[in-house]
Amino acid sequence: MQSGDSRTHRPGPVTRIRVREVAGSAVRDRRDDLATEEPLEIRLLAGGESRTVAITMRTPGADFELAAGFLHGEGVVAPGDIAAIGYCTDEDLEPGARYNTVTVRLGVPKLPDLASLERHFLTSSACGVCGTASLDALRDRCPPLATGSTITVSPEVLYGMPSLLRKAQGVFGKTGGLHAAGLFTSDGSLVGVREDVGRHNAVDKLVGWALLGGRLPLDRHVLLVSGRASYEIMQKAVTAGVQVVCAVSAPSSLAVDLAREFGVTLVGFLREERFNIYAGAERIPA
Amino acid sequence: MQSGDSRTHRPGPVTRIRVREVAGSAVRDRRDDLATEEPLEIRLLAGGESRTVAITMRTPGADFELAAGFLHGEGVVAPGDIAAIGYCTDEDLEPGARYNTVTVRLGVPKLPDLASLERHFLTSSACGVCGTASLDALRDRCPPLATGSTITVSPEVLYGMPSLLRKAQGVFGKTGGLHAAGLFTSDGSLVGVREDVGRHNAVDKLVGWALLGGRLPLDRHVLLVSGRASYEIMQKAVTAGVQVVCAVSAPSSLAVDLAREFGVTLVGFLREERFNIYAGAERIPA
Repeated sequence: MQSGDSRTHRPGPVTRIRVREVAGSAVRDRRDDLATEEPLEIRLLAGGESRTVAITMRTPGADFELAAGFLHGEGVVAPGDIAAIGYCTDEDLEPGARYNTVTVRLGVPKLPDLASLERHFLTSSACGVCGTASLDALRDRCPPLATGSTITVSPEVLYGMPSLLRKAQGVFGKTGGLHAAGLFTSDGSLVGVREDVGRHNAVDKLVGWALLGGRLPLDRHVLLVSGRASYEIMQKAVTAGVQVVCAVSAPSSLAVDLAREFGVTLVGFLREERFNIYAGAERIPA
Repeated sequence: MQSGDSRTHRPGPVTRIRVREVAGSAVRDRRDDLATEEPLEIRLLAGGESRTVAITMRTPGADFELAAGFLHGEGVVAPGDIAAIGYCTDEDLEPGARYNTVTVRLGVPKLPDLASLERHFLTSSACGVCGTASLDALRDRCPPLATGSTITVSPEVLYGMPSLLRKAQGVFGKTGGLHAAGLFTSDGSLVGVREDVGRHNAVDKLVGWALLGGRLPLDRHVLLVSGRASYEIMQKAVTAGVQVVCAVSAPSSLAVDLAREFGVTLVGFLREERFNIYAGAERIPA
């Protein structure tokens, strides 16, 4: 494998490979950079017990933040629960695997109930899943936003956010190979940006960064994602307390349902001095 | 909820909602169409036993194909295993949930081993996941493509595929709200197209359509996806026997690894009379 060197040491976010470029009748072989995609196993450790809770394909980098943000978004950990995070770098592991397992040690005597995670994946026993039930499950752990703590954001501030996000992405991310998630203050200052091949992962990394830095909840902030807004993006935002979520592309129907139900402002198609407001228009006075 | 009417009857692929459009200093309220996103629970039934194997967020439509294609891509069913597929439409279910559970009845006396699925999600016990291990797991059930049965595709045929795919998408899909996957013959005829909010789902629907119609393996075909090519897209393509995979956007590093390992041709950035070949260039003679 040409890109096999990514296996023999700690993988980076970019993998260099050989590629054949065909344009009209011209053909040339050259080197090219791709977004690295590698699996990450997230393990929980508490009271001597250990359990794998997820394996996700991700772009290496900010792995501890990804693990912390994923666990928070799924309702498995609250701020303060995490005692330590580390790679599983056993000497007898093959080198490529050393940085693909993150162990999150909790400062509690036993592993938390992982039923919500299991339901999320595999072991639902009821025959009756629907969007409403998905919202109900989220409501059990996240009350709708309090309307008293509301922020407002002007259209001009929103117009400026996509270009700030693009400028903050790495050179590679600008080529479109990576999804980005950015966190802004309500007056449009960019306070954090994370990238990944998976758009959910970019949001998890950003929320994990906030969690590990003691910045949760993000109730004074605006989250901007470079792609679409789906149910899962909104679920992560709501869990982190975000009041305004913006997407460069379209939201899904369930993302809009969730935003309206939880009192979150949802903006879509934010590009070229225009946008649509799907929920919570009161936070964006014209 | 404005879009709540999608809950009270069988959900369609499009949900009509009210939206506020802001463009420069102009503000107007109007109706807009969004891609519907609803959870789908996939249940396996065999020998009187039943088990939920996945819950995925998807755009309603082609749900039986999605279930069949998902199970095939994960190595759970082979062509011929499926005896019947139906919705779980119990009278006592709430209406919104009736079309969100698909039961796949197998013509075998007991449920298959679901260890591969579990490993995929939750219960890996080894500390040592890596890209190579992911490829090894796939190799256990899919040998690399035989080089004898190879097809070739000309650059001119490839150039024409993205516009054929766009034309075949529904009016709504052309707005960019949905991912598309299209299946072509090697001379560029479009034989099938499926759409979804999730790009993996679009491929599952297409493979499921082929499986239920007795068209597997797809070893004379080209698969085109409207977005990026990730590990999971390639896994589904390899399992279906596809020889040439094209993506309108970038592939990930692991998608390229998988293509090279399994002898699949992988084309990326297929747009505007140009593309890159990342693997299997011999099938695309210049």
